[in-house]
Amino acid sequence: MDLVVAKFGGTSLASSRRIRNVARRLFAYQQQGYQVLAVVSAMGKTTDGLLTLAREVNAQPPARELDVLLATGEMVSMSLLAMAIEGLGGQAVSMTGRQAGIVTTTRHNKAQISRIQTGRIRRALDKQQIVIVAGFQGITRAGALTTLGRGGSDTSAVALAAALGAQGCELYTDVEGIYSADPRLVPRAHKLDSISYEEMLELAAAGAGVLQMRAVEFARNFGVELTCRSAFSDNPGTLIKEADMESALVSGIAYDNSEAKITIRGVPDALGIAATVFAAIAHAGISVDMIVQNISENGHTDISFTLPAGDLARLLPVLDAQVAKLGAREYLVDESITKLSLVGAGMRTNPGVAAKMFKVLSQHKINIEMISTSAIRISVVIATAKSEQALRALHTAFDLDGDEIFVESQLTPDEQAAKAQKGR
Amino acid sequence: MDLVVAKFGGTSLASSRRIRNVARRLFAYQQQGYQVLAVVSAMGKTTDGLLTLAREVNAQPPARELDVLLATGEMVSMSLLAMAIEGLGGQAVSMTGRQAGIVTTTRHNKAQISRIQTGRIRRALDKQQIVIVAGFQGITRAGALTTLGRGGSDTSAVALAAALGAQGCELYTDVEGIYSADPRLVPRAHKLDSISYEEMLELAAAGAGVLQMRAVEFARNFGVELTCRSAFSDNPGTLIKEADMESALVSGIAYDNSEAKITIRGVPDALGIAATVFAAIAHAGISVDMIVQNISENGHTDISFTLPAGDLARLLPVLDAQVAKLGAREYLVDESITKLSLVGAGMRTNPGVAAKMFKVLSQHKINIEMISTSAIRISVVIATAKSEQALRALHTAFDLDGDEIFVESQLTPDEQAAKAQKGR
Repeated sequence: MDLVVAKFGGTSLASSRRIRNVARRLFAYQQQGYQVLAVVSAMGKTTDGLLTLAREVNAQPPARELDVLLATGEMVSMSLLAMAIEGLGGQAVSMTGRQAGIVTTTRHNKAQISRIQTGRIRRALDKQQIVIVAGFQGITRAGALTTLGRGGSDTSAVALAAALGAQGCELYTDVEGIYSADPRLVPRAHKLDSISYEEMLELAAAGAGVLQMRAVEFARNFGVELTCRSAFSDNPGTLIKEADMESALVSGIAYDNSEAKITIRGVPDALGIAATVFAAIAHAGISVDMIVQNISENGHTDISFTLPAGDLARLLPVLDAQVAKLGAREYLVDESITKLSLVGAGMRTNPGVAAKMFKVLSQHKINIEMISTSAIRISVVIATAKSEQALRALHTAFDLDGDEIFVESQLTPDEQAAKAQKGR
Repeated sequence: MDLVVAKFGGTSLASSRRIRNVARRLFAYQQQGYQVLAVVSAMGKTTDGLLTLAREVNAQPPARELDVLLATGEMVSMSLLAMAIEGLGGQAVSMTGRQAGIVTTTRHNKAQISRIQTGRIRRALDKQQIVIVAGFQGITRAGALTTLGRGGSDTSAVALAAALGAQGCELYTDVEGIYSADPRLVPRAHKLDSISYEEMLELAAAGAGVLQMRAVEFARNFGVELTCRSAFSDNPGTLIKEADMESALVSGIAYDNSEAKITIRGVPDALGIAATVFAAIAHAGISVDMIVQNISENGHTDISFTLPAGDLARLLPVLDAQVAKLGAREYLVDESITKLSLVGAGMRTNPGVAAKMFKVLSQHKINIEMISTSAIRISVVIATAKSEQALRALHTAFDLDGDEIFVESQLTPDEQAAKAQKGR
C-alpha cells in the first residue's frame, strides 16, 4: 500500500477551520487507499509567542527548558488535527517526537536527526491509522527533549519519508509552489512544474525563502522527491527532484534585499590581512555572504563584503577595532543594496548567461557593484532603487514570463464561502 | 534537609511577571536551605482556550487526544517557571507527569493516580535542583498520557507530597486562605487559621470552592497537612489538618446559589416510585444534591430535589417523560434558591446548632424550603432574594464576625508597584 507523507506549516493550521481543512485532505487520501503520515508545525505564530514569553521570564532562556516549551506548539496542533480527523469518521493517532522514535543529537535548540525508530509508526499505519507526528522535535538517546531549530518540521517530514521508504514528501505551505521569481515583484512570474535539488538549494541560499535548505539537502541525500504546494488549493505545486538530462538555462531569479554591504577602504595590502578581518567577524558569530577584494594600488586595497543587515549592530564594534588595528582608512556601510541571483542547471553547459545578464543590466543603465558565481548561479549586487526594474527586465530577457498573471488564494474553501457570504 | 512542596494555580502563573514572582518565592525557599518541589497548573485560562479549540475541530473530542492537548498547558508553565528560576541564578529542572513518574489509571480525562516512582525527582532534589512538575497529568502503565480532570493539579501536589514523605503541601491560589464565609458577601468574614479535613470537605461539598474535595481527601488519607494561601502576599494562609480535640461549634458558612430546585407534585405514593425517578435522572448523568419527600396525602405525595442549575436543560426532557409515565400531576422549577450550610466539627457534641439556626432565620422572617444535615453540617435551602441577609445574620449570630474588614490583593509586588506608578 502506497504511503503519503505530508507536512503542514503553521499558516495552514492557524485556526480550527484550517485544521479541519487539512483533516479533510488527509482523510481523502486514506479513502483513496493510501497509508497516511502527516507532520505538523505549530499553529500560526505560536512558536513566536512562546519565544516572547520565554524571553520575558529570562532574557537568555536555558536551552533545555526552551526546547520543552517550544515543543508544546506542535503537540497542540498534532492533537487537534487527530481530533479533527476522528470527527470526520477517520482513525488517527498523534505522536510526539519521542513517540515517533525521532532520535537526535544532544544540541538543544539546533539538534540534528541521527536516526528514526519507525516501529511504532509502522504498527499504527498497518492498523490503518492516520499518523500525525509533531514536527521540529525529537529526543536524545538519554531521553531529553530536543528541537531541530527553525524550519525543523520540513526536516522531520523528509527524514520520516526517507526512514519509511516513501517515494516522496509533500510540503504544504501558503504558496502554490516555487516561482521563477517572487510574484509580488514580478506579476508575470510563473510557477515551476519541477526544479532540481541543486537549483532549489541555490535559490534558497540566494534568499528565495520558501523551503529550508536543510530539508532540501536531506531530501537530495536520501532521494526523497519533494512537492511544494498550497494547503489552500488542489493545484499540483512544484516537484523538487534530481535534475533532468536537459535543463533550463535559467529556472528562476532570487531577489534578496535583506543584506548590507560594507567596504573597508585603504587596507594595507599585506599577506593575511583579509584573513585577520574575516576571522574577527566570524568570531563574533556573523556569517558573511559575498566578498570582493579590489586590485591593489600603492600598496593599499579595498575590501567589500555583504552580510545580513540584521547583524550590522553586532558587526560595527568589530569593524571599528579592526580598522584601527590594521591602519585602514575607513569603512563605508550601504544598506540600500539588493542581490539578484540567476539560477539554472543549464548554465553548467552554456557559458553565455553571465554575459547576457550584464548586457541587460547595462542596457537599463544599472551599475553592478559585486558579482559572485557558482556552477549554476550568477549573483550580482545592485542598488535597491533599481532592483525591481532589473528583476523584471532579467525575467523577460531570459524568457521566464508566464502567459497569465497568477492570483493565489490563502483561504480554505470554508473561508472562501464565508467571505462570499459576508460580501452579499 | 526539609522538603517544601508547593502548588501554584493558573492565576498565580497568568503572566511572565507573575511567573517571575513565583520563581522568587521558590528561590527564596532554596536559599533558606529547603529542598523545593513545585507543582504547576496551566497559565491563566489556557486550559479553557484549548478545550474551546478542541470542540471547534470536533464536537466530541476523543479522550486520548484531548489529554495530549490539555497536557501542553502545564508543560508551558513548568518550562517558563524553570527558566525564570535559572534567570535568578537558581538551578531548576522541569518534569512532565511522565518524567516525574506519576502513574495513573487508564481512564482518559479523569484518571486517578495509582503510584508515583519518585527516583528521578529525588535525584534532582539531591542535586539541589528546584524541581517543577506539571500538575494534572500522568501516564498509564502502557505509557499513554492521561489527565486527572479539573482541579487535578491540587491532587498531583498532594500525592507528590505524600510519596516524598513531605510533612505538608502549600497550595497557592489567588485568595488568602479559607474564610468563615465568602468575603465578597460578608465583609466581616475572617480568615481561619486552621480547619480540619472533615470541615474542609463539608465546606467544599457545600459549594465553598477554594479547594478540590479530591485533593483534601487524598491529604487526609495520607496525613499531609495542607496550607491554602495566596501567591500575592506573604500572609500565612489557612492550615488544613486533623481536627483538634476542642473544635469550634461553627467554623464557616458556605453559600451556594448555583443550584435549582425541582418539585414533582401529585406523585402516586407507591413503593419504588422515587427510585424510578432518580434512576432515570442518574442514567442521564445528572447528580442530584438534596432530596425531600413530603408526607403522603390521599395516596399522593410531592418530591423535591436540588441539582446544579446548569444541568436543567438535560433534566427537563427526562422529567417530562417521568411525569407522564408515573401519572404525576406536574413539576415546578425554581432557580431562585440558595443553599446555606453551617459547618463545624463542634456540632458533633453540641445539638443546639440547628435550633439556633432555625430561630435566627425565623426572626428574619426567612422561610426554610429544604433541610439536610450531616454530623458536622446543617444545610438549608431558602429564597435567593433573602439569602445574603440570612448569611450575614447567621455569621453574626454564630460569633464568626472578625474585628476588621480584610482587603485582599491579587497583585504581585511588581504589579502593585506598576499600578502605583500609573496612578501618579
